[in-house]
Amino acid sequence: MPVTPVRIGLIGAGRIGASHASVIARRVPEATLVAVADPRPGVAAGVAEPLGARGETSVQAILEADDVNAVVIAASSVAHSDLIVAAAEAGKHVFSEKPAGMSLAEIDTARTATAQAGVAFQVGFNRRFAREFVAAREAIVSGRLGTVRQLRSLTRDPGSGPADPSAVPEWTIFTQTLIHDFDTLNWLNPGARAVDVVATAGSLTAPGHPTLLDHATVVIRYDNGALATAEASFAAAYGYDVRGEVLGSEGMVTMGEGAQSSLRLHDANGRLATTAHSDTELLADSYAGELAELANAVAERRQPSVTGDDAYAAFAIAQACIDSMTSGTRVEVAR
Amino acid sequence: MPVTPVRIGLIGAGRIGASHASVIARRVPEATLVAVADPRPGVAAGVAEPLGARGETSVQAILEADDVNAVVIAASSVAHSDLIVAAAEAGKHVFSEKPAGMSLAEIDTARTATAQAGVAFQVGFNRRFAREFVAAREAIVSGRLGTVRQLRSLTRDPGSGPADPSAVPEWTIFTQTLIHDFDTLNWLNPGARAVDVVATAGSLTAPGHPTLLDHATVVIRYDNGALATAEASFAAAYGYDVRGEVLGSEGMVTMGEGAQSSLRLHDANGRLATTAHSDTELLADSYAGELAELANAVAERRQPSVTGDDAYAAFAIAQACIDSMTSGTRVEVAR
Amino acid sequence: MPVTPVRIGLIGAGRIGASHASVIARRVPEATLVAVADPRPGVAAGVAEPLGARGETSVQAILEADDVNAVVIAASSVAHSDLIVAAAEAGKHVFSEKPAGMSLAEIDTARTATAQAGVAFQVGFNRRFAREFVAAREAIVSGRLGTVRQLRSLTRDPGSGPADPSAVPEWTIFTQTLIHDFDTLNWLNPGARAVDVVATAGSLTAPGHPTLLDHATVVIRYDNGALATAEASFAAAYGYDVRGEVLGSEGMVTMGEGAQSSLRLHDANGRLATTAHSDTELLADSYAGELAELANAVAERRQPSVTGDDAYAAFAIAQACIDSMTSGTRVEVAR
Amino acid sequence: MPVTPVRIGLIGAGRIGASHASVIARRVPEATLVAVADPRPGVAAGVAEPLGARGETSVQAILEADDVNAVVIAASSVAHSDLIVAAAEAGKHVFSEKPAGMSLAEIDTARTATAQAGVAFQVGFNRRFAREFVAAREAIVSGRLGTVRQLRSLTRDPGSGPADPSAVPEWTIFTQTLIHDFDTLNWLNPGARAVDVVATAGSLTAPGHPTLLDHATVVIRYDNGALATAEASFAAAYGYDVRGEVLGSEGMVTMGEGAQSSLRLHDANGRLATTAHSDTELLADSYAGELAELANAVAERRQPSVTGDDAYAAFAIAQACIDSMTSGTRVEVAR
Repeated sequence: MPVTPVRIGLIGAGRIGASHASVIARRVPEATLVAVADPRPGVAAGVAEPLGARGETSVQAILEADDVNAVVIAASSVAHSDLIVAAAEAGKHVFSEKPAGMSLAEIDTARTATAQAGVAFQVGFNRRFAREFVAAREAIVSGRLGTVRQLRSLTRDPGSGPADPSAVPEWTIFTQTLIHDFDTLNWLNPGARAVDVVATAGSLTAPGHPTLLDHATVVIRYDNGALATAEASFAAAYGYDVRGEVLGSEGMVTMGEGAQSSLRLHDANGRLATTAHSDTELLADSYAGELAELANAVAERRQPSVTGDDAYAAFAIAQACIDSMTSGTRVEVAR
Repeated sequence: MPVTPVRIGLIGAGRIGASHASVIARRVPEATLVAVADPRPGVAAGVAEPLGARGETSVQAILEADDVNAVVIAASSVAHSDLIVAAAEAGKHVFSEKPAGMSLAEIDTARTATAQAGVAFQVGFNRRFAREFVAAREAIVSGRLGTVRQLRSLTRDPGSGPADPSAVPEWTIFTQTLIHDFDTLNWLNPGARAVDVVATAGSLTAPGHPTLLDHATVVIRYDNGALATAEASFAAAYGYDVRGEVLGSEGMVTMGEGAQSSLRLHDANGRLATTAHSDTELLADSYAGELAELANAVAERRQPSVTGDDAYAAFAIAQACIDSMTSGTRVEVAR
Repeated sequence: MPVTPVRIGLIGAGRIGASHASVIARRVPEATLVAVADPRPGVAAGVAEPLGARGETSVQAILEADDVNAVVIAASSVAHSDLIVAAAEAGKHVFSEKPAGMSLAEIDTARTATAQAGVAFQVGFNRRFAREFVAAREAIVSGRLGTVRQLRSLTRDPGSGPADPSAVPEWTIFTQTLIHDFDTLNWLNPGARAVDVVATAGSLTAPGHPTLLDHATVVIRYDNGALATAEASFAAAYGYDVRGEVLGSEGMVTMGEGAQSSLRLHDANGRLATTAHSDTELLADSYAGELAELANAVAERRQPSVTGDDAYAAFAIAQACIDSMTSGTRVEVAR
Repeated sequence: MPVTPVRIGLIGAGRIGASHASVIARRVPEATLVAVADPRPGVAAGVAEPLGARGETSVQAILEADDVNAVVIAASSVAHSDLIVAAAEAGKHVFSEKPAGMSLAEIDTARTATAQAGVAFQVGFNRRFAREFVAAREAIVSGRLGTVRQLRSLTRDPGSGPADPSAVPEWTIFTQTLIHDFDTLNWLNPGARAVDVVATAGSLTAPGHPTLLDHATVVIRYDNGALATAEASFAAAYGYDVRGEVLGSEGMVTMGEGAQSSLRLHDANGRLATTAHSDTELLADSYAGELAELANAVAERRQPSVTGDDAYAAFAIAQACIDSMTSGTRVEVAR
């Protein structure tokens, strides 16, 4: 290919890291997977080598590698902002899984560092690359839906809830799960800003647990008057569920249905559509799409379409949810 | 009500007869169920009395009843044409279940008798009153679909096939089941006439049975060039299935999906829509609609929208299928 | 019919009153429409006479009529509770359109009066008779869905919003529209009670209007931990939209999709399902079902399945929404 | 990657050839596009160079290239069998677009040549790699559907029909279009063989044209008694339409619906799903899947899952259709 592919070093070879490695190597022709780093001995090599890349046990090896010009961060969330800053200082372009930090301050530091370094900075809001969400956004931007008035975004994780509720960091449902919905809602309400938030949540799979919140419903008010609902659950028996809905003055779009394909099996029980049971299955094309966007942005010397400002705006809603849960009231969203 | 309801005598209290009785009494305000006749002692009364009507054991009692001005025939198919003629001669309006006779000659006799008597004559092609088929026909007649080119109509009976294959009269799949599809195809291709037919059928639930045909696929060529397929099965494990499809030069309509309601149950198996398992459930509104049409036609002193000519035209295709099965070749459709 | 039909006097011949009149006369064989009252000269007769009933200009004529044993109230909402009390005192069974009163006190008076008079008392929560909602409730009650955890109920009125915003009484979106959703949510979460509510609403079709609220999103917390969202809009360009969703520990049900039939029209624009544009179209079977329930309850000398307590419980949520809008905070639901 | 990718030379840079080139280069990590040949000056280079491959103007350059070990044939159908033989004789593995020849004799020559050369030989029946068709086949093979009894496969090309009917080679609808459906039906009825065929077809977009057939309906009888229908149209105003349906003794599967994504746009017209308007859009994943199968088969030193025998069996049905059209009767399928 005439364009030199972006050469990627991946940090973190856990479930999502391994998925990103495979996607980069197999689904993103504009990018080359060069190296994978993970502190656990042999883990990075186990992921990297079958894909023609090398394994490393230190982040530093990635940051100092001359044959790497972009870093994909899939490490623990608490490390995200430090890694973004370190990568920026090493002159690498950066893709970070969401959230870009564990506080607004961290995210601000990260976006400032990447801006000062002049590198591309993209956050992993993969829903923006799902075909139906892209088409919804186009319908909204084109004016076909009129003024946006009422929105819904929903994320439900498959299964029956956390095996060990205490292993789930506090506020995870807002900072890790609903952060996707907050970004989606911001993006589907172009030009509007979230004004305030009221969050309602509980621990329904482990009643009485002191910190787990496994179901949450959040209402966000925007400065264009639009009312948005974000819903999450950690326990969807029927699979991984991602949906959206936007009511405008001229119509409505709905997105997401979760069927694995157009196959319908009809038997004595009725008509059955099998459903996707993981994010990497349901959103396979989106994972490829977001990494292709990174590669294209680098090649075209522009910022990716999902920016640090987007990361900040989504986290500001998550933070307001945390404050709303603590205070029990409606809370303004920081700018 | 200012319009005197049509006063109906029902002949035959089997499964469909009992259904018609209930529909007339409960779903058709323009009609009154007056009497039900069935030769089996007590059967007619058992159906009629809870609905406020009287039971009779002879057809004659219906035909001679002064308080009956229309007859609904749901007796054995072999009796249909004789009953139509007798009812017409008695001056009663007539609704007959399909087919209107067991041969083209019988149907011709029936339509002639009703015409000479000046009574209304309607045949039970209920699919014409199903909402989605009505809307399809409107789309076609309005020109929105352009020229009709390729059609499909399908009927599948629920279950695993005939318990006693020898109890199924020969050619039943054409004269009793596909007759609905033949009429539907004629009706959805307005102004066109069936030219020739080739039928393919077999006994798949009772392989080797000498007369049973339980699956059939028929191709009909129309004089406007349109190609139509009619399919039937006596063994749909997933329920009663009625569908249609019309491709025109400007678009396509599809009809039928069988879900009982918009409820979808999502669990570990996927997303399930329960399906209707009987004609009287799937087509409940159509059964009411066809009997309301009879009542309205009588009240308005006009012929019903489904005529003896329609009965003849559909049976002509069924007869051509029989001939095609016998000869193994394509057969012209009688005019 | 052996059971004497319930003999109904209808109060109010506006849009919904006229619809109820027709439904009683034509779709509910267990009931007879005897009389219709409306103070506007000729209006009641215009509705009643084509249906074989008589028109009256005074409510009193209905309440004193010996040939009426049940009253259906479709008058202005502000008159509901007084009419319920008057009907009960006249010894008539009562069906009242929702809400059963304009305050919790009014509804309490109404349910007390009917209880003391020993008459049947039903409120017009028609969604309980929609096939998909009935099936959803059965799935929940049967345990197939496990524990109820997260719910959604939605109502959107067709069109582009109120022509005259000032003609819409204050808080209508809660007391007239969302009252359906509040009852639906209570009913789909059997045995649970609403604990508190936070409401978010705005005037989006008439920005800045002092009293109109045309879009609202309400979050309700139940004492079994379940989180429910109720959403309403007065301006759905695409038709009348009623949907529901219940997530349980074992699965999810979704209800409502609005297509008029299974017809799909495919043309250069794509595949189109036409949608219902009025409540009486979308919920035609539900309107018949709720009035059949009244008739059956009277015939069987029992209370209908939708009680005054249900009316109270739903209004308690509406009242909490009003208080939440006034205070800007989360508000407890009165018991 | 540890496995050396298959190194592909592509013959033919027309619409499908260009699509294959892009798919190989961008969607099939197991394969490398090395060269593209097309006799039209500059055409091959225009396709190849942006993808990092070289353009050639002669087939010979591909067949003699040491760095090519597999050939993908997307040239004119009349050249397919000669190219397959030449590639086999040059020791290259072969993927050929369907049909593998223009007669049964040609296809037999092609499969014999590849067998003798010991190279992999795959035919481009892409539907076998579409997710819903794969899942259907799995349901059938697993026994979940019971015995296969009635099948349907359908292909409709988008648009309003051939711009120049005389430019369409005779019998194209059978040999180029329905050949996909014939293979699909064979594949979805595992272990069964087509016994006889009756074809009905016409020129409906250019009535009276001497050779064009633009709509066809074919009925195939299998030796397990199953009845199959294959339908094609060259003029689907609503897009490219590929569907399948298999009724078994225990249930039914349906495949295909054509929506571009799960987005539904609701406006005053109703609820709209946009549809795919080309094969390369609708079947994008299938095109990648079939070329990955070639690469995997070569790497694993096995024959691909779609064989020369499959090509022969599908063409035998196409040939029987031609004979059926000529004779007007049912025709046996050659073995």
